[in-house]
Amino acid sequence: MSYSPSRASYEHSFRHLKASHVLKGLASTPFDLTVEGNLSPNRIERYSAQAGEFKLLFGTERVNDDVLQALKELAQEAHLVEKMAAMQRGEMINKIEGYPSENRKVLHTAMRDFFMHPNQGKEALKATEAAKKECDKLKAFMSKVDKEGQFTDLIQVGIGGSDLGPRALYIALQAYQKPGRRVHFISNVDPDDAAAVLKKIDPKKTLVVVVSKSGSTLETLTNESLVKEHFKKAGCNPAEHFLAVTGEGSPLDNPDHYLKSFYIWDFIGGRYSATSMVGAVMLAFALGFDQYMNILKGAHEMDRIALQPDFYQNLPLLSALLGIWNRNFLHYPTVAVLPYSQALLRFPAHLQQCHMESNGKRIDRMGHPVDFDTGPIIWGEPGTNGQHSFYQLIHQGTNVIPIDFIGFAESQLQEDINIQGSFSQEKLLSNLFAQSIALAKGQKSDNPNKVFPGNRPSQILLGKRLDPFTMGSLLAYYEHKIAFQGFCWNINSFDQEGVQLGKVLAKRIIDQFSAKRQGKRAERFPEAEALLRHLDDLQ
Amino acid sequence: MSYSPSRASYEHSFRHLKASHVLKGLASTPFDLTVEGNLSPNRIERYSAQAGEFKLLFGTERVNDDVLQALKELAQEAHLVEKMAAMQRGEMINKIEGYPSENRKVLHTAMRDFFMHPNQGKEALKATEAAKKECDKLKAFMSKVDKEGQFTDLIQVGIGGSDLGPRALYIALQAYQKPGRRVHFISNVDPDDAAAVLKKIDPKKTLVVVVSKSGSTLETLTNESLVKEHFKKAGCNPAEHFLAVTGEGSPLDNPDHYLKSFYIWDFIGGRYSATSMVGAVMLAFALGFDQYMNILKGAHEMDRIALQPDFYQNLPLLSALLGIWNRNFLHYPTVAVLPYSQALLRFPAHLQQCHMESNGKRIDRMGHPVDFDTGPIIWGEPGTNGQHSFYQLIHQGTNVIPIDFIGFAESQLQEDINIQGSFSQEKLLSNLFAQSIALAKGQKSDNPNKVFPGNRPSQILLGKRLDPFTMGSLLAYYEHKIAFQGFCWNINSFDQEGVQLGKVLAKRIIDQFSAKRQGKRAERFPEAEALLRHLDDLQ
Repeated sequence: MSYSPSRASYEHSFRHLKASHVLKGLASTPFDLTVEGNLSPNRIERYSAQAGEFKLLFGTERVNDDVLQALKELAQEAHLVEKMAAMQRGEMINKIEGYPSENRKVLHTAMRDFFMHPNQGKEALKATEAAKKECDKLKAFMSKVDKEGQFTDLIQVGIGGSDLGPRALYIALQAYQKPGRRVHFISNVDPDDAAAVLKKIDPKKTLVVVVSKSGSTLETLTNESLVKEHFKKAGCNPAEHFLAVTGEGSPLDNPDHYLKSFYIWDFIGGRYSATSMVGAVMLAFALGFDQYMNILKGAHEMDRIALQPDFYQNLPLLSALLGIWNRNFLHYPTVAVLPYSQALLRFPAHLQQCHMESNGKRIDRMGHPVDFDTGPIIWGEPGTNGQHSFYQLIHQGTNVIPIDFIGFAESQLQEDINIQGSFSQEKLLSNLFAQSIALAKGQKSDNPNKVFPGNRPSQILLGKRLDPFTMGSLLAYYEHKIAFQGFCWNINSFDQEGVQLGKVLAKRIIDQFSAKRQGKRAERFPEAEALLRHLDDLQ
Repeated sequence: MSYSPSRASYEHSFRHLKASHVLKGLASTPFDLTVEGNLSPNRIERYSAQAGEFKLLFGTERVNDDVLQALKELAQEAHLVEKMAAMQRGEMINKIEGYPSENRKVLHTAMRDFFMHPNQGKEALKATEAAKKECDKLKAFMSKVDKEGQFTDLIQVGIGGSDLGPRALYIALQAYQKPGRRVHFISNVDPDDAAAVLKKIDPKKTLVVVVSKSGSTLETLTNESLVKEHFKKAGCNPAEHFLAVTGEGSPLDNPDHYLKSFYIWDFIGGRYSATSMVGAVMLAFALGFDQYMNILKGAHEMDRIALQPDFYQNLPLLSALLGIWNRNFLHYPTVAVLPYSQALLRFPAHLQQCHMESNGKRIDRMGHPVDFDTGPIIWGEPGTNGQHSFYQLIHQGTNVIPIDFIGFAESQLQEDINIQGSFSQEKLLSNLFAQSIALAKGQKSDNPNKVFPGNRPSQILLGKRLDPFTMGSLLAYYEHKIAFQGFCWNINSFDQEGVQLGKVLAKRIIDQFSAKRQGKRAERFPEAEALLRHLDDLQ
């Protein structure tokens, strides 16, 4: 594992890899799941892999042994596992060669490398040491909170990665919440978002966690001010209620204004920050510090799995390459993530960010525009709910939608009763399995409205039970699946230049509003002025 | 408006309409928004339409006057407004010619036709009369609830259309909620969903609304039983707490088991049922009966707008045709719905159902497989949150994603403060406008990572303020936009055969589980048995 990706290994173009040519050829006749006997029990049994707490079932993908062999070769040819090792070791992979770029390490895995076999990379060790220090601070702080018993509520103020990942984890693990604790989130700059939360809490009993790495995120600072005003009006001193999660030395890192600061670093991307202090403070408050540690343990286990050179042991790698097959060779533009678990209600929204912000790119790591498709559009809702919603299109629409199903053998709360001969959890899993079979095999009929074309691919990730450890693993599984796809396309999955232009223009339009309100003139911006005039007709 | 669509008018194939040929030609050189001066203030002003409480701005779509003229001709050639009139009048349009099909009227508009100018169609009048009777029952029931003051909480048990639309409306209008009232939803057959809600309520103070038109929805009956058990254990008689919303004479329509039954009919599709009793009971409890009426008034206003023959007065028609341009001529597979309003958090999930279940079809009304694309994949999250999530891909990914932006001139709660020179609502609108401009115009740069290709189309629907009336209008706007697209493609937007196959297979797999648990044998289902064996490895 001492391979270090050379400049040359980043120069590969995905389209020109040998395995890409093989796959392109194979894609002209993908495996036909609708042929009687093709989706055999033997296939379902054989096309599966197990690691950690999970099994990945992919018999319902449109692959055969030749495709799997070529995908395996693609992984080797593009040095995917070596690049994962380089990332976890702390090499500077957030970079575009030859152009100004972020030039950062990518070390979210170091945030949870406290257990067996810590990574021995020098940078990784340093990052883990820093993370451990924050964890110890948090543990001490939380044991004080637990002892004093003043706080019942916590508000997390953050947006994007400071909101979506932590919120998805919180919702997923509410079943394990400490009694008498409630968590709220304020993210949107929409003033109604903050107002709705503030109606529900008693400031005297509430902690506020303000999360911004730079300490300069417009939405977060705006919401912080709104919340601060509210606390002051209620006679509370914000400095006794507000915590900061931020970069050391940022404007938020100020003991005069915050009860405590917890640190993050530039090598933790927002969308990969849920296991860092960004999620930690809130999760340790809601679930207890030990359960937060269990999340880290689960994530760490998957980090190790992602380093497995054996294709069939490395679940995120295998899933990533099945996704590449669907995206680049069968040309499907979206992926639906459909968890059969209501607790994972907001997990697709987190993945939407993590995936689309990471891999929605149009240039490769050398700055060349790509001539193939990169990250797909990610969307989804929990099943069985989705079955009563958009599954009509999935079965009979004119677009094919590859699916990531997620399911668990057991329910979280184990409060299940037998109704009409079966338990709810059995009904849930039966529906999941039924969908994957129905989508794959389809149905013939003399009534054209009852024809299901079939050959609609899916894979199933199965876990035992959604607990903090498993949730940590699941989170890391997708982080690494996304990273592997980015490595394969040879793009930089760790920057987000595409969000800048909108920010710059928004600032100029805010000036238009202010000027207009004050009867002044701002710097000319004709398109924006025309849009603002439309508002007048409504007021 | 006495035109009745003949069999012939349903025989048109969308691809062979004259206007389709014209549009196909125009699509080879769509309007280039990136050329300096092309997105002019004059264009932004001129490419707008206003009706009711809304303005639709479409200067940032890739259309010019020729395209708009051809879209207008397409609307005429396909008799879209006449078909809308036929629907609202009560003709039997839920039908596939020549094959067994549902053969039903489609009369959700009759559920709110109590105000000015009621539709004079005989079937519509009958339906409105029936709906009015239920409204009167509900009014009397709610005034009793208000007077007695026993109930503080209400649980809505339903799935699909009995959940998504009502839930989206409830979340959107929480700012208008009656003090001391709380609403909860149980939909998923996942037992953790019900357990989480039951932890929060006191059965003695709680009403339960069970919603199922047929009275046989698996998930809903399962959850009803779970909730009933819980109430009995708490010493409450379910018959004093449970309400049914169902078809007259269904298994749920039983005064021995329910405090009251409210009726719906087979001409109300689940995904179009939010303004019927399906949403009414919960909304009248949460907001008060009068506010529920305001929702109906707003919806009714948009129903009338959808009958306007003038293309530029009929907002849902105009928006539908711009969508057809993007879908069938520029070939974009998805549409993102991005409301700049946190209150509309779950509105995209409702639209996902309404759109994808209605128009995710592969045969036309004559039973012929279509040779063009029908309903796109619908997804979305509120802005500005999405900007910190998936907008990277929208700006710089390899797929183009047409966008429906939704914004409001004013915030709901008007609890807004000036921070750094501007109010939050101004920041919100500035971001919305900035995104539409940035996506359209793009950006050139010597740094390839800072290049934005532009020409990414969007439209903006602007309202004054999101109140119950406006929400009703917004709901109906999308209902009719969807119906117009279905009319244009000449498909049946009102059935959902595509959900049947999964249901049938799920029942067989449930039998597998039961048999296995009891050490018996069920009817052979080899694929399912193979999937079940995978579970054993996890247990």
